[in-house]
Amino acid sequence: MKINPGFLNLKDRYLFALIGQKVREYTAQNPSQEIIRLGIGDVTLPLSPVVVAAMEQAAEEMGRAETFRGYGDEQGYPFLRQAICRYYAGKGVNLTDTEVFISDGAKSDLGNILDIFAAENTVLIQDPAYPVYVDTNIMAGRQIKFLAGTVQNDFLPLPSPDLEADLVYICSPNNPTGAVYSREQLQQWVDWALDREAVILFDSAYEAFIQDPELPTSIYEVEGAKRCAVEICSLSKTAGFTGVRCGYTVVPHELVREGVALNELWFRRQTTKFNGVSYIVQRGAEAVFTPEGLQQTRESIQYYLENARLISSALEELGLWFTGGRNAPYIWLQCPGGMGSWEFFDYLLHQYGIVGTPGAGFGQQGEGFFRLTAFGRREDVLRALERLVTLSL
Amino acid sequence: MKINPGFLNLKDRYLFALIGQKVREYTAQNPSQEIIRLGIGDVTLPLSPVVVAAMEQAAEEMGRAETFRGYGDEQGYPFLRQAICRYYAGKGVNLTDTEVFISDGAKSDLGNILDIFAAENTVLIQDPAYPVYVDTNIMAGRQIKFLAGTVQNDFLPLPSPDLEADLVYICSPNNPTGAVYSREQLQQWVDWALDREAVILFDSAYEAFIQDPELPTSIYEVEGAKRCAVEICSLSKTAGFTGVRCGYTVVPHELVREGVALNELWFRRQTTKFNGVSYIVQRGAEAVFTPEGLQQTRESIQYYLENARLISSALEELGLWFTGGRNAPYIWLQCPGGMGSWEFFDYLLHQYGIVGTPGAGFGQQGEGFFRLTAFGRREDVLRALERLVTLSL
Repeated sequence: MKINPGFLNLKDRYLFALIGQKVREYTAQNPSQEIIRLGIGDVTLPLSPVVVAAMEQAAEEMGRAETFRGYGDEQGYPFLRQAICRYYAGKGVNLTDTEVFISDGAKSDLGNILDIFAAENTVLIQDPAYPVYVDTNIMAGRQIKFLAGTVQNDFLPLPSPDLEADLVYICSPNNPTGAVYSREQLQQWVDWALDREAVILFDSAYEAFIQDPELPTSIYEVEGAKRCAVEICSLSKTAGFTGVRCGYTVVPHELVREGVALNELWFRRQTTKFNGVSYIVQRGAEAVFTPEGLQQTRESIQYYLENARLISSALEELGLWFTGGRNAPYIWLQCPGGMGSWEFFDYLLHQYGIVGTPGAGFGQQGEGFFRLTAFGRREDVLRALERLVTLSL
Repeated sequence: MKINPGFLNLKDRYLFALIGQKVREYTAQNPSQEIIRLGIGDVTLPLSPVVVAAMEQAAEEMGRAETFRGYGDEQGYPFLRQAICRYYAGKGVNLTDTEVFISDGAKSDLGNILDIFAAENTVLIQDPAYPVYVDTNIMAGRQIKFLAGTVQNDFLPLPSPDLEADLVYICSPNNPTGAVYSREQLQQWVDWALDREAVILFDSAYEAFIQDPELPTSIYEVEGAKRCAVEICSLSKTAGFTGVRCGYTVVPHELVREGVALNELWFRRQTTKFNGVSYIVQRGAEAVFTPEGLQQTRESIQYYLENARLISSALEELGLWFTGGRNAPYIWLQCPGGMGSWEFFDYLLHQYGIVGTPGAGFGQQGEGFFRLTAFGRREDVLRALERLVTLSL
């Protein structure tokens, strides 16, 4: 029996597991120091009342013979897929419900979608990036190329004609940088992909944070994208579903490679290796897309965006370079005083009891940078900023 | 961009999707004929009250800031992993909670566990078998060997010394045949695997149906199994969770290959490509393992086993050869009059309005056989049997 050699090429530990361990060790040695977490992108506001009510009702239905539900379609209940189609119609994007697949979250689908692509494809990943893009492709033994995000390109790298790859990940609003591609910039990526029959894996997990009406919240707002892009989204940040677990993946029927519709391949993958999302969760997700749900959701997003604004203002006062923090829940800053990412991590933890995420954990280009998130409770954010204003550079 | 060539080697459609289509076509043409489904293994009894109450409470907790939960551990909450350890302790199997991984169901994990094994491993699959074993390995491009289940070996094939493979699937109680391996027979498989460092993927999804105290309900009841077996289980049939979605996978720390603990590989896979099961669902699953939950669950299992007994009696009266139906929710019968599996499927559908599952859908050796399930409502089972007694052989 041979184990998958790809696993042996992975770095030891998943980034957030490593951070968790460092914090636990520090806390064990300094039990009286209160820790404020502005690190992992977990939400703190509770679910909207309309979502809770829908899940309670669904649980109750499951306890009565007349309303009990067993297996649903692996790709999700039509009521939820249709609700998502209506949500997209509101953005001016027309989808049919067979183009929408309900998942237990973007992380699962970002990894699992790779099943339908050959191992010999070359993958293009922006650096810095969400570590899952890199690790899942190392597991699959794929060749990875990196495209550098830098201060010079505002961490929004663009394709050049000599750039070649089969698959490319784009995350906008970006994790970890909070940078957001404009319509014109995404059009460059779509044109590049169409030219060489590449496929874009578009991670739109943070789309709900976009406030500027000029910025696209779906890659399908861009001409030609249905012929080259899969879009993967999540309700984790949109509606506080990090613990509820629901997302969706859009595979347009027009997306065809080697004469095969990727929609059919993904359908085959999901019907074979997945059995759908909990009915109770799907009813909760449906409620997110009701007028009441959207209203309640918007209020939570505004709350987090106000956190981002407060953090951004503090960083401006400190004179630190950063991007993100508008139209995104992430703030990506240059570590002060030429510190390295992990050095700054330790410094913030030990001096201020603040946990952030070292940029180096997102790739080589992240070295010297640091990610803060806006998902904290307001009072925690304010206390963290009170501590930070004393930051000596 | 190249698509995964493994997908092109798959048969057109997943078995149950094909059956669904045939039934829809028949119903469209014969709208007045009432259909009784004894086909797909979906449960019909509602969830236990204790499970519903736990999920309602969990949903309510998610709506309040003080009790809201975001991301949990990818491998599941300790409260559920520990409840499962206690359940195993009741079988005389000692596990630590780091050996238990919570999943959204056995189907997902049966497919996803393959990620940790090299593509060049040879896989041994019993024929007939749950189609997911075959299809997931075709997708991964693995070489598959089949081991025939036959009337002669009671559909419980055993290893011979000249049999070689790296991975082997064992499902007991078996889907589709309902046959159950004895302790001595499983010991033969474990010894065979230990001899050649193979790994057994033990599918115990139907373990709760075993009533005979002599039959093992976990492979870890067999000496040496922790050094060669992964056990994958589900609450779908145990507790009616087909629509709720929760299962678990056990990877013992003692299971080491090429110097690497498979537990660590699976942990790495799950933390990278999965984000855990809904908190609400995990609270429901925890309730299954309370004394009250186990009692309520046992009553449902007894109900289904009584269905199985009624179907078995009818088949005996008809003089048909069959296996299963005791200690299992499946009855595997030889089609009457030398009919082929799909021929008998069409015959039952068109003559009696009864939907079963053609044995041929589970592999070549399934041709000429047919699966009935005991998961129907009692009144449907009784009406189906009333129709069936008129079966002309």
